[in-house]
Amino acid sequence: MATAWSRHYAQRINAVRSSVIRDLLKLTQRPEVISFAGGLPAPELFPIDRFEEACHTVLQHNGAAALQYGPTEGYLPLRELIVSNMRRYGIVADVANVLITCGSQQALDLIGKLLIDPGDRVLVEAPTYLGALQAFNVYGARYVSLPVDHDGIRTDGLHEALRSSPKFMYILPNFQNPAGVTLSEERREKLVLLADARGIPIVEDDPYGQLRYEGEHRTALVVLDRVQRRTDLRYMSGNVIYLSTFSKLLAPGLRLGWVVAPQEVIARLVQLKQGADLHTSTFIQMVAYEVARDGFLDQHVKRIRAVYGERRDTMLAALQGCFPDEATWTRPEGGLFLWVTLPPATNCEELFQAALRQNVAFVPGGPFYCGEPDGCHLRLNFSNSTPEQIHEGIRRLGIVVKEQLKRPALSAV
Amino acid sequence: MATAWSRHYAQRINAVRSSVIRDLLKLTQRPEVISFAGGLPAPELFPIDRFEEACHTVLQHNGAAALQYGPTEGYLPLRELIVSNMRRYGIVADVANVLITCGSQQALDLIGKLLIDPGDRVLVEAPTYLGALQAFNVYGARYVSLPVDHDGIRTDGLHEALRSSPKFMYILPNFQNPAGVTLSEERREKLVLLADARGIPIVEDDPYGQLRYEGEHRTALVVLDRVQRRTDLRYMSGNVIYLSTFSKLLAPGLRLGWVVAPQEVIARLVQLKQGADLHTSTFIQMVAYEVARDGFLDQHVKRIRAVYGERRDTMLAALQGCFPDEATWTRPEGGLFLWVTLPPATNCEELFQAALRQNVAFVPGGPFYCGEPDGCHLRLNFSNSTPEQIHEGIRRLGIVVKEQLKRPALSAV
Repeated sequence: MATAWSRHYAQRINAVRSSVIRDLLKLTQRPEVISFAGGLPAPELFPIDRFEEACHTVLQHNGAAALQYGPTEGYLPLRELIVSNMRRYGIVADVANVLITCGSQQALDLIGKLLIDPGDRVLVEAPTYLGALQAFNVYGARYVSLPVDHDGIRTDGLHEALRSSPKFMYILPNFQNPAGVTLSEERREKLVLLADARGIPIVEDDPYGQLRYEGEHRTALVVLDRVQRRTDLRYMSGNVIYLSTFSKLLAPGLRLGWVVAPQEVIARLVQLKQGADLHTSTFIQMVAYEVARDGFLDQHVKRIRAVYGERRDTMLAALQGCFPDEATWTRPEGGLFLWVTLPPATNCEELFQAALRQNVAFVPGGPFYCGEPDGCHLRLNFSNSTPEQIHEGIRRLGIVVKEQLKRPALSAV
Repeated sequence: MATAWSRHYAQRINAVRSSVIRDLLKLTQRPEVISFAGGLPAPELFPIDRFEEACHTVLQHNGAAALQYGPTEGYLPLRELIVSNMRRYGIVADVANVLITCGSQQALDLIGKLLIDPGDRVLVEAPTYLGALQAFNVYGARYVSLPVDHDGIRTDGLHEALRSSPKFMYILPNFQNPAGVTLSEERREKLVLLADARGIPIVEDDPYGQLRYEGEHRTALVVLDRVQRRTDLRYMSGNVIYLSTFSKLLAPGLRLGWVVAPQEVIARLVQLKQGADLHTSTFIQMVAYEVARDGFLDQHVKRIRAVYGERRDTMLAALQGCFPDEATWTRPEGGLFLWVTLPPATNCEELFQAALRQNVAFVPGGPFYCGEPDGCHLRLNFSNSTPEQIHEGIRRLGIVVKEQLKRPALSAV
């Protein structure tokens, strides 16, 4: 290289490492690999014909507006549709509380930009969504974490964790990525109460909440927060910023997510989004609206639930049949992932390589921790493989795991 | 508000002001207003039928991939198309040097994120593109500026300006927004030489370069840099990051721009883009590729040039006929804007209000300066009005300007 560009980079950027998972995923893309590694929706469920109809309608009736610059806040009818969609889950907001983003990932970036000064701590789950860590790291975030169990983030250590005065808490309450666990009602209330009492905002990331395959919907933190505050239900004024996305409900290739927040927060996020990309594609927003409208989104989500629910059941049964007794795993009530725990001495990296030699892939759990991982974990995605692939893939993986457990662990030598 | 959210905001964010222009533009959107205020392409030129065909092709032949997650770098065929498009302008790059962004605005944001530590100075033109200031401000940028004349940024003060050790220079060499001026070949060479000698990177923002209505194409800074360095023409390794966009060539509603840079810079920008929004919509990129391919983009750009060139001529003639002798203006060889200069004592804010009462709008020049503006300027857009609207609008504006110049200026009292 003629120029040593690295000397020009901002200090915090030179500290940011490349994503391990990104590099891993490249290895898993050979067609012969059965991959439980990505977090991809099933492409065979994409409503392609409905999209084509929508493109036709938008371009013929509204082409000039669809291809022109648009408002930073987003396309009004789409924001209205989101408002009415969320109302069914008890989240009562006004369009003025909704901002359209380029996927939830952009919401995480804008929130990091808005709230994080270098050195600020963020309270996260261990493990947590890797993409959030990537978004926050850039702004110089440090972390304090609390472990996750089958009922979500453990709140018994919360008082202690809050002593480090985190700037905000980042929580995935439903079918968490990567662990697939759901926060219990009791813990939700405790979390919201304490956050409120201590004046520490909660960022509630809920990409999968509508993809529930069993059990009852749990109350969103943003709703609990409002009930506890007894604020006007028609007006968001709480302590929670809520995020969701069309990526898992319609298609991730749209890059469409949304933020629900108090108006003053939305106003600031709009300002930051304007500097970040002016606005999200007008055309894509109009097309998504045309696809989702007239009840189509709900029907489509029902269809996804049926297919993914079956795939989850298939994977749980296959794990039961093929994995050794030393392995445990979560039983997600929804979402895209489950989380396998192996004995702490297992070498997860070796396991990944051995699995890949058998043409089956997963994501090792390490990168999902802001600090040291607690042992060896596998994140398994069940949405993007057919039941047949799941059977065969888990069978192969079971053999690899059993072999790995027989070998003397390097860390135990 | 129940929560005083402002105490949660990062320090540099609380220092960022809202955009004046954003508020102004809202005033100009009444249908009876002839607006020279925005920077909008002419929507009647959008190739809507070609877009519809492209949507059909993409969804029917490649629907599952179009709606799925995609690579952060962008859709390969689109990056290849960009490489071959740029080659005609002497910019020889490899696909590995090209990153797709959500408009040039996202490129500015990612570059700010990559290069700016709080307090770093950026060397900019006075006036310069407001959106760049917005993007850089968020990262705590400070500025050093050099004035622009009819040959672009004045390089006689460059040595002096470089004493403040700017982190990089941000330059719009062609038909600059807002002033419409183009940097002379002589100054280009001086700029590149000095930047290179001092090891200060140049960010070359070129959204309008292909929209030239008269005169010869001028060599891009990224090309001059490479010639001076005598580096391998097939391999970008210079000191310049080059930006352009489909917003003015096809449609801004796509939100598609691109960065050309050395591979090590692209690698870092990819990492930052991954944290910022994972990737740009796969569907939109595939559709843009289908629209642009097989020479369509070139034909379409020719058509835009003819229409915008006529509108520019109309506006120049109307200004000649309707504006008072005290007013001067630039004669842009391309792009979307021209820049009117009125006597320094003119109250630009009053002029804006008076014009709006006559249902004609422009953007006052003040916000385009990182520091104090040098007198009263009007940015006039000619791409988004018909020749008839331009005639009538400039006639009204001429009357308002003449009246304003007759009044005793407040600042002179």
